[in-house]
Amino acid sequence: MRILLLNPNMTESVTAMMVESGQSVAAIGTELLPATAPRGMPYISTRAEAQIGGAIALEMLADHEGQVDAAILAAFGDPGLLGARELFDFPVIGVSEAAMLTACMLGRQFAIVTFSNSLVGWYRDCVDLNGMAARCAGIHALDLAFADVAGDQEASAERLVALAYEVVRDSGADSLIFAGAPLAGLARRSAHLIPVPVIDPVAAAVKLAEALVALGPRKAAMGSFQRPAPKQTVGLSERLTARIAQSDVILSRGHSESFSA
Amino acid sequence: MRILLLNPNMTESVTAMMVESGQSVAAIGTELLPATAPRGMPYISTRAEAQIGGAIALEMLADHEGQVDAAILAAFGDPGLLGARELFDFPVIGVSEAAMLTACMLGRQFAIVTFSNSLVGWYRDCVDLNGMAARCAGIHALDLAFADVAGDQEASAERLVALAYEVVRDSGADSLIFAGAPLAGLARRSAHLIPVPVIDPVAAAVKLAEALVALGPRKAAMGSFQRPAPKQTVGLSERLTARIAQSDVILSRGHSESFSA
Amino acid sequence: MRILLLNPNMTESVTAMMVESGQSVAAIGTELLPATAPRGMPYISTRAEAQIGGAIALEMLADHEGQVDAAILAAFGDPGLLGARELFDFPVIGVSEAAMLTACMLGRQFAIVTFSNSLVGWYRDCVDLNGMAARCAGIHALDLAFADVAGDQEASAERLVALAYEVVRDSGADSLIFAGAPLAGLARRSAHLIPVPVIDPVAAAVKLAEALVALGPRKAAMGSFQRPAPKQTVGLSERLTARIAQSDVILSRGHSESFSA
Amino acid sequence: MRILLLNPNMTESVTAMMVESGQSVAAIGTELLPATAPRGMPYISTRAEAQIGGAIALEMLADHEGQVDAAILAAFGDPGLLGARELFDFPVIGVSEAAMLTACMLGRQFAIVTFSNSLVGWYRDCVDLNGMAARCAGIHALDLAFADVAGDQEASAERLVALAYEVVRDSGADSLIFAGAPLAGLARRSAHLIPVPVIDPVAAAVKLAEALVALGPRKAAMGSFQRPAPKQTVGLSERLTARIAQSDVILSRGHSESFSA
Amino acid sequence: MRILLLNPNMTESVTAMMVESGQSVAAIGTELLPATAPRGMPYISTRAEAQIGGAIALEMLADHEGQVDAAILAAFGDPGLLGARELFDFPVIGVSEAAMLTACMLGRQFAIVTFSNSLVGWYRDCVDLNGMAARCAGIHALDLAFADVAGDQEASAERLVALAYEVVRDSGADSLIFAGAPLAGLARRSAHLIPVPVIDPVAAAVKLAEALVALGPRKAAMGSFQRPAPKQTVGLSERLTARIAQSDVILSRGHSESFSA
Amino acid sequence: MRILLLNPNMTESVTAMMVESGQSVAAIGTELLPATAPRGMPYISTRAEAQIGGAIALEMLADHEGQVDAAILAAFGDPGLLGARELFDFPVIGVSEAAMLTACMLGRQFAIVTFSNSLVGWYRDCVDLNGMAARCAGIHALDLAFADVAGDQEASAERLVALAYEVVRDSGADSLIFAGAPLAGLARRSAHLIPVPVIDPVAAAVKLAEALVALGPRKAAMGSFQRPAPKQTVGLSERLTARIAQSDVILSRGHSESFSA
Repeated sequence: MRILLLNPNMTESVTAMMVESGQSVAAIGTELLPATAPRGMPYISTRAEAQIGGAIALEMLADHEGQVDAAILAAFGDPGLLGARELFDFPVIGVSEAAMLTACMLGRQFAIVTFSNSLVGWYRDCVDLNGMAARCAGIHALDLAFADVAGDQEASAERLVALAYEVVRDSGADSLIFAGAPLAGLARRSAHLIPVPVIDPVAAAVKLAEALVALGPRKAAMGSFQRPAPKQTVGLSERLTARIAQSDVILSRGHSESFSA
Repeated sequence: MRILLLNPNMTESVTAMMVESGQSVAAIGTELLPATAPRGMPYISTRAEAQIGGAIALEMLADHEGQVDAAILAAFGDPGLLGARELFDFPVIGVSEAAMLTACMLGRQFAIVTFSNSLVGWYRDCVDLNGMAARCAGIHALDLAFADVAGDQEASAERLVALAYEVVRDSGADSLIFAGAPLAGLARRSAHLIPVPVIDPVAAAVKLAEALVALGPRKAAMGSFQRPAPKQTVGLSERLTARIAQSDVILSRGHSESFSA
Repeated sequence: MRILLLNPNMTESVTAMMVESGQSVAAIGTELLPATAPRGMPYISTRAEAQIGGAIALEMLADHEGQVDAAILAAFGDPGLLGARELFDFPVIGVSEAAMLTACMLGRQFAIVTFSNSLVGWYRDCVDLNGMAARCAGIHALDLAFADVAGDQEASAERLVALAYEVVRDSGADSLIFAGAPLAGLARRSAHLIPVPVIDPVAAAVKLAEALVALGPRKAAMGSFQRPAPKQTVGLSERLTARIAQSDVILSRGHSESFSA
Repeated sequence: MRILLLNPNMTESVTAMMVESGQSVAAIGTELLPATAPRGMPYISTRAEAQIGGAIALEMLADHEGQVDAAILAAFGDPGLLGARELFDFPVIGVSEAAMLTACMLGRQFAIVTFSNSLVGWYRDCVDLNGMAARCAGIHALDLAFADVAGDQEASAERLVALAYEVVRDSGADSLIFAGAPLAGLARRSAHLIPVPVIDPVAAAVKLAEALVALGPRKAAMGSFQRPAPKQTVGLSERLTARIAQSDVILSRGHSESFSA
Repeated sequence: MRILLLNPNMTESVTAMMVESGQSVAAIGTELLPATAPRGMPYISTRAEAQIGGAIALEMLADHEGQVDAAILAAFGDPGLLGARELFDFPVIGVSEAAMLTACMLGRQFAIVTFSNSLVGWYRDCVDLNGMAARCAGIHALDLAFADVAGDQEASAERLVALAYEVVRDSGADSLIFAGAPLAGLARRSAHLIPVPVIDPVAAAVKLAEALVALGPRKAAMGSFQRPAPKQTVGLSERLTARIAQSDVILSRGHSESFSA
Repeated sequence: MRILLLNPNMTESVTAMMVESGQSVAAIGTELLPATAPRGMPYISTRAEAQIGGAIALEMLADHEGQVDAAILAAFGDPGLLGARELFDFPVIGVSEAAMLTACMLGRQFAIVTFSNSLVGWYRDCVDLNGMAARCAGIHALDLAFADVAGDQEASAERLVALAYEVVRDSGADSLIFAGAPLAGLARRSAHLIPVPVIDPVAAAVKLAEALVALGPRKAAMGSFQRPAPKQTVGLSERLTARIAQSDVILSRGHSESFSA
């Protein structure tokens, strides 16, 4: 199966790190198709940037429609996730969503550690939006710049792991999530140094995307995630315009259809 | 004072209706500056469209920066609100936020009535995001098309009021919100027919925007809504690019400064 | 418009401070009518006192009925607010309610700072009652006596501002509320020393009262805040007795009435 | 032990009904001391009346201080409860609180049935204030006048029991509370007709009051229910004035005192 | 009345301590029938052990059916409580449930202090399961072994009381619960050293069990705690097998039965 | 990888149905090892039975330790799950947990449909325990006996699908979970008849178990799910006794260990 690993940020090197992390756990037969945002910003780190980056993510999804079996929104905070889930027929999974759902299978509360304080507000919104506030034992950050971490994860790894250790010890968290695209892979490298399960959001998302593809859920034709009605738009990208306009009709079938085993 | 009445939808006639509704309650000296989205869609009605429309709203805010004292995001669901609040130095208020906060001063629970079922999922997300789920007695809708309502509010007014009456009677709600831009003004016209306070989101937003301007809160220089650090972006509108890039530095002042009354 | 600024405490000098704070933001045409409790206590600071003071507030409201367009319950904790909202036909707003709703438009979480630890329990009840627990980043207090603060706000201003600064820095709050009547005006004086928006509950209440008067919501004739049925009472103040007894009948109108634009 | 059965309403016949209900479950040695409000209203049925009635309840408690081991606030909605708990040294229990806590020992969710729709809003506030919203399967009412029910419980008993039966069947509630003073005793009389445990709030309160007296908890000298500092008041009843003024000092003892078994 | 004091742990000396604590508050006429688990573990301290110990508790309850009027599940965490409440016709009360409900009558929030950190996770689950998270100001523990505390409460009493004092002072809790069977009786011995009410879970449970027996609630024949349908099982204890199998039919009576006062 | 498909019920034919459902989505290389409870009951359907069945599940897990890479607790309601997760070193996943987490990736709210009303109370507890109450749009059931459904799923399939269709249409749910072991496979067979994604709990659990095995989280050595300390027990099964007793020591490693990439 082909899974789109969509980085709504513009930094190719970070996309590469995430592909590596995802590849390390992918099943045989799973191909990760990387895509890096052609416009936007090097790294989304605020609510405003997530608003913009999420819209760009929808464009990118429209560009890859038909080529993939599922897509991963690979920026912690999951910009554009709910809209994507509504608009497209293939499963779309966010890396923060994937990390938190995975944490739910490993204990009662998770803690989140990231590299920059500027991310904490947006990440907290994301935890709330997922209804996970009661399961989050805290979000903690160093105060590093994106450029420094993205360029050389090694340089800050020791400090991040030390912070994670302290957070786990002091918060009573049952698992630890390393959040932020440039931390991809750190979970695996540091698992032996942190006394609870450590979760890599990209790795978790790859496995959950594979799971969804295997389960093969149909696109909703009822409820609040049903395919929206076709609509004419102005000034959007070509493929996104087409996606919103065409909406090849999926009728809500009644159960009058006879049931056949 | 000048308040931007920002319609992230492209339908000018609806902007006009909202201006009229807002003007009817505006204080002497308040000028409403209307703006209609130059691109996007005629009417935002899904999560995906809100993701896109919210990004367009940020562009529009950047275009009007320096010309207004506050801005109203005039689409129920408040696309882009939190990002706008973070990015700009003037107060930005959403019409759904304004309606719900006003309802809090008029009773324990409010009900929401709108014209199309397709809006309900997105509106419910908005209620949740505002932490208002416990105060919402329900979201109810007819199944009308935007074009029909926008073209002629009169045609559907009686059905909407009848639905509102039933919802109030059956849900125990203490107030009623008519949601959706093409319903602007309906609250005032139907107040005598509905036995609880009826709230017009645009009117409520105008009064709360005036309140905020008068209170003159400073732009946060700490916390999760502080002005983001400057950042280079690619492919965004000229003014939005500048806004994100410049970020004329507001330093977090320590309290070492002497206190003077 | 005339707005009753009702101080359910007996300290005239504090009423004066609050009038000054309110006046500083009031619109042209808004007249604040001050009223200080004729009996009760110098300063409400416990749940028991709020129970008593709230009943006195209802008496005071009955005494001013017909003379004002709206009333502000000007003691943080809002003693008697819900009863007042139910019993009277004009809008009644509490200062703590106003402060918290205003904070909702300025960020995700607010912190509360006050002058005496003895107030914290009651204030926390008030936050809970308003359903704002998830938006409150903490309530913090010095341990000053009312008499000292009421007599000379200046004396404690520096310590209060220092505490507020620390709370904002450590709690991640997006705004700060100075709670407690004798702190009226402190928000404005210290805004330049605290790195997030600072909210004066009285000022916020004046603006929200003006907003409600302009919006002109009808008195509920259905729901849980409808005007209570007339009732004979014994031993209450003359005007309150009359208010509860007469209840000039507002019938719940059906929507059979024809709709007219 | 002597337990004050305090009816904050003025209707003596209802007090008598409640005494009878309480007496039927009281332990040997428990004496119920009835007290009926000397002023206020025949029956509290709104938030405003509860504000006033709660203040009267505090007066009544002050009048009986020293004569009783505990007190029961015998009006569903528990007017004045938290203030009473703070101000007095003996345990004070509310009948709605007692009913809900008892229900917690008998299943997951309880339903509440009462005689008048006008009570529902206030009762719902009470459920919320006790943090019991998630355990409440609904509040349902007939539309009877207090006078009718108080004068002759028999006349409405069959309709109330029929409503209770329907509510239990349709809501999935695990227990049923008959709320409202004039329904005292109905639980016992109808237990064989309702298929889940039926709770009489007064009876529950008598047993929980006995429990608290036996457990002999000390008066808090720390936390938010510690005895308030002495305060001069104006215009309150003689005994309540004294209670608030004197506050015979209970010092917070440190644990430096040696521990002795 | 006879109340089974069921210790699902195997340590007889701890059962004896709990009987003594319970006896000290029991009413005249209340007989506590002690029972100590014949198999399982000396002391339940994890979720896995609670799963096993709860099943053993059901066996013990089946063994004592017919001999008692009510039963107390005397291990903090209440292993097996909900199953017991469903399966048996007499009231079953857990000691942690009893402690928390009692705390609700003594203030807004309680703190829990116990002797071993290994208990905290399980106790927190128990607080959550009872819907009491918002009323719990924290769970704090020393790091003592069960054997040490069970053998000689005296040895650790001073440290436990000192911890309780600190927790109360720092958390703002309104009451304090000493949790864990080997701490039975400590509440009474230390009440004069801790400035808020101190709750002994066993003592609280005895009083609430007496209350329930006096109130005489019927066994549910509807709702989620109705007596389960008879079922054949394999390999369970003789009496438990019989209990699950026979289920002497309690039919859900309709309210067609005539109502008789 | 080998995954234990543990049926804590005694009905072999149901185990077979679940294996078939799981096998249909399992990855190449995944072997499902079925195990059916050797004692207990044909089918767990109450809280009491879940208490007993969960303890039996722990025995079964101990019996298979060392033979599998992960285990699935294959009874909706997940009896014994948290204890298992604490006690064993390999991942243990419950089918209801798996179904609900999967539903979170497919929309905002899920509805649950099962075959017997007697299951609803226990299932609702399970939803609550997972913190999923806000995401559950309702639990609905037919009133069929286990024996009938287990013997012949075909017989009731049409009625179950019709109920599911109605629930989806009326509740606004975004996905549908068929709960209850004898409904294994029904989701797949009926997906074309229900207009939202339909989730088979066993299939979901197989995919999530595969995901966890691939992610390879370490066993917690800190937090509330760390491996319990060794303990001597009496009367438990041989392997469970050994598991609890030995607890081959996993020390909590400090981060003093040098970090190596």
